[in-house]
Amino acid sequence: MTKATRTQVAIIGAGPSGLLLGQLLHKAGIDAIIVERQTGDYVLSRIRAGVLEQVTMDLLDEAGVGQRMHKEGLVHGGFDLLFKGERHRINMNQLTGGKNVMVYGQTEVTRDLMDARQAAGLPTIYEAGNVQVHEFDSAKPRVTYEKDGQTHTIECDFIAGCDGFHGVCRASAPKDKIREYEKVYPFGWLGVLSDTPPVHEELIYANSTRGFALCSQRSATRSRYYLQVPLTDKVDDWSDDAFWEELRKRLDPEARQHLVTGPSIEKSIAPLRSFVTEPMRFGRMFLAGDAAHIVPPTGAKGLNLAATDVKYLSTAIIEYYQDNSEAGIDSYSERCLRRIWRAERFSWWFTSLMHHFPENGDIGQKFQDAELDYLIHSESGSKTIAENYVGLPLDFGD
Amino acid sequence: MTKATRTQVAIIGAGPSGLLLGQLLHKAGIDAIIVERQTGDYVLSRIRAGVLEQVTMDLLDEAGVGQRMHKEGLVHGGFDLLFKGERHRINMNQLTGGKNVMVYGQTEVTRDLMDARQAAGLPTIYEAGNVQVHEFDSAKPRVTYEKDGQTHTIECDFIAGCDGFHGVCRASAPKDKIREYEKVYPFGWLGVLSDTPPVHEELIYANSTRGFALCSQRSATRSRYYLQVPLTDKVDDWSDDAFWEELRKRLDPEARQHLVTGPSIEKSIAPLRSFVTEPMRFGRMFLAGDAAHIVPPTGAKGLNLAATDVKYLSTAIIEYYQDNSEAGIDSYSERCLRRIWRAERFSWWFTSLMHHFPENGDIGQKFQDAELDYLIHSESGSKTIAENYVGLPLDFGD
Repeated sequence: MTKATRTQVAIIGAGPSGLLLGQLLHKAGIDAIIVERQTGDYVLSRIRAGVLEQVTMDLLDEAGVGQRMHKEGLVHGGFDLLFKGERHRINMNQLTGGKNVMVYGQTEVTRDLMDARQAAGLPTIYEAGNVQVHEFDSAKPRVTYEKDGQTHTIECDFIAGCDGFHGVCRASAPKDKIREYEKVYPFGWLGVLSDTPPVHEELIYANSTRGFALCSQRSATRSRYYLQVPLTDKVDDWSDDAFWEELRKRLDPEARQHLVTGPSIEKSIAPLRSFVTEPMRFGRMFLAGDAAHIVPPTGAKGLNLAATDVKYLSTAIIEYYQDNSEAGIDSYSERCLRRIWRAERFSWWFTSLMHHFPENGDIGQKFQDAELDYLIHSESGSKTIAENYVGLPLDFGD
Repeated sequence: MTKATRTQVAIIGAGPSGLLLGQLLHKAGIDAIIVERQTGDYVLSRIRAGVLEQVTMDLLDEAGVGQRMHKEGLVHGGFDLLFKGERHRINMNQLTGGKNVMVYGQTEVTRDLMDARQAAGLPTIYEAGNVQVHEFDSAKPRVTYEKDGQTHTIECDFIAGCDGFHGVCRASAPKDKIREYEKVYPFGWLGVLSDTPPVHEELIYANSTRGFALCSQRSATRSRYYLQVPLTDKVDDWSDDAFWEELRKRLDPEARQHLVTGPSIEKSIAPLRSFVTEPMRFGRMFLAGDAAHIVPPTGAKGLNLAATDVKYLSTAIIEYYQDNSEAGIDSYSERCLRRIWRAERFSWWFTSLMHHFPENGDIGQKFQDAELDYLIHSESGSKTIAENYVGLPLDFGD
């Protein structure tokens, strides 16, 4: 038996992209249903990035969910590059004419968006099984899913594929119309979350002959640290003690001294990948965020890119309904991809600059040292890293 | 039978580094003998780089050999980057606050230096066989060579190793005190010299999916073009017609239309290599130029780096004799290497950006396109390439 519902936009995926899109459409009076195969608690349990660009902050404000971020988030005007055992600050704020980033966990962003959606009484279907997208190349796309022993159908005008790298939307695009670009890195990030004060008030990106390390944070009392590890390592190989000991070795003497350790409250290994899908529109189905592209986490571009996709997509859909214009829809893929490739390039470059690549030999380490030395001593060099880190302007290159 | 001569500085190699050093020492009243295993004509026949940085121009002036360069050389305030079929000018002059480069062939620099040396009646021994360096770890170094059936000895205070990548000086350094860094690129440059007007008044660096191309020049009537080719290619595989046809395919429509072709007067394939020796001083023997380091030719840093080495070395030796100070000698290696690694980094980066690397897949080409797109649209990005191309200031980072 099939139950049919009708909405304007069917959003697949209740992560930050889908939730943010739902909120922006709701503000514009457009109906949307979100379909998610996991539970809400599962979505919230995913520990991800925690650095927001100005465009992302603006968008959360626009969606009406920025209050807690402004209250609890930490504004950072710079970060440290550590190489050859010494730390050097990149003064982003000064180098970009006043721009900053906000340290505020993706989990918190998701929670704020979920709360707002619930408060507005908007429909989210969790634990939807066997989600499928249909006829998105026609004017009458449909989404089907199974729940409580029944097959459900959502009839809609548009499908928004916010369902991540492993989602059904990209997988449903016609094989002869999609092109994928991918690079897999020969290492992973071992991450530890702990309720300890951060070693430094800003982030530290460390290039070490032992491998990359990142000292990040979620709040004044919660730290997030990462270590570059071989892909063959398992989480169980790393006791908390072993993690802290290795992290210490990759830091400078001052940081080593200030590091406060404690029990991990989350520990995981994530692979690093660069991935882009072209195009991001297939008829009346649009891909956004991780469904269309993945960046390695160095530089913290993942959530920010997803937010920009959602900004372009919500604007396009609102234009469609309010102005009866398909211009935004038609240019969606191209607009997104231009920004995406820039961020992909930066994330690949920053990853290549900061990680240890034994396969590049000793001269590879020397090139890294020389590039870092150049970057910190050249004003234009420092500006290139700062302007990319805070996020290139939305109209960059126009 | 052995004939012994005495001088202050024995210079091994009569290429531009050795000749320039000889001239600068002569100006300071310091005696030097140059020993060269080839003939003067052979040295002049080597076709190499043709772009001089301001520091190199200044040094040639200081050596008193800059007249013809200023008269015949071409001052360039910019160059073109060609990618995705379109050309974009990097306005070096504007981006660096008024700096330029000089297009003037290495052959011409060498000729001017040879002429000046001959006019001053300074000793150069050509066709010296079996050149050897001895006891440079003592206060009494010696150089021996064979000529006209006799073994000759030069007793000296210092040995300057200006004898290139395959020279005897680096090969004579103690193996346990020398460290070498190397990267070999998986392609070569096929170069053609022709007496045809250049396709464009400035240089064109072309990124193409068919491979890199460079449109360079020696004068208003002599062009120098290069194509990236597989290392397995032989010069005989490339007729002039095949060269021009392939070059045309790698250019933009306008350049294609303006290209004037003609018979090649020189055609050769050179491998690309990044190579650095540390240190550059072994007691009383100093390495300078290609004897200590090689850059891939993208960015034209080879001759310019050699000139800076010679500047530091001549200053150090002059200080030694005039001020009885070993400070310059003691800091020679470190001062050179700091600048060398910066130029090595730039040359590696510019090579990586502009060449086709099939092993990096389609995403590698996309990263290149995105980086070039970023560089031309970002003022700080454009400045990084401009300031490195014209040459970083001698006191950069001090």
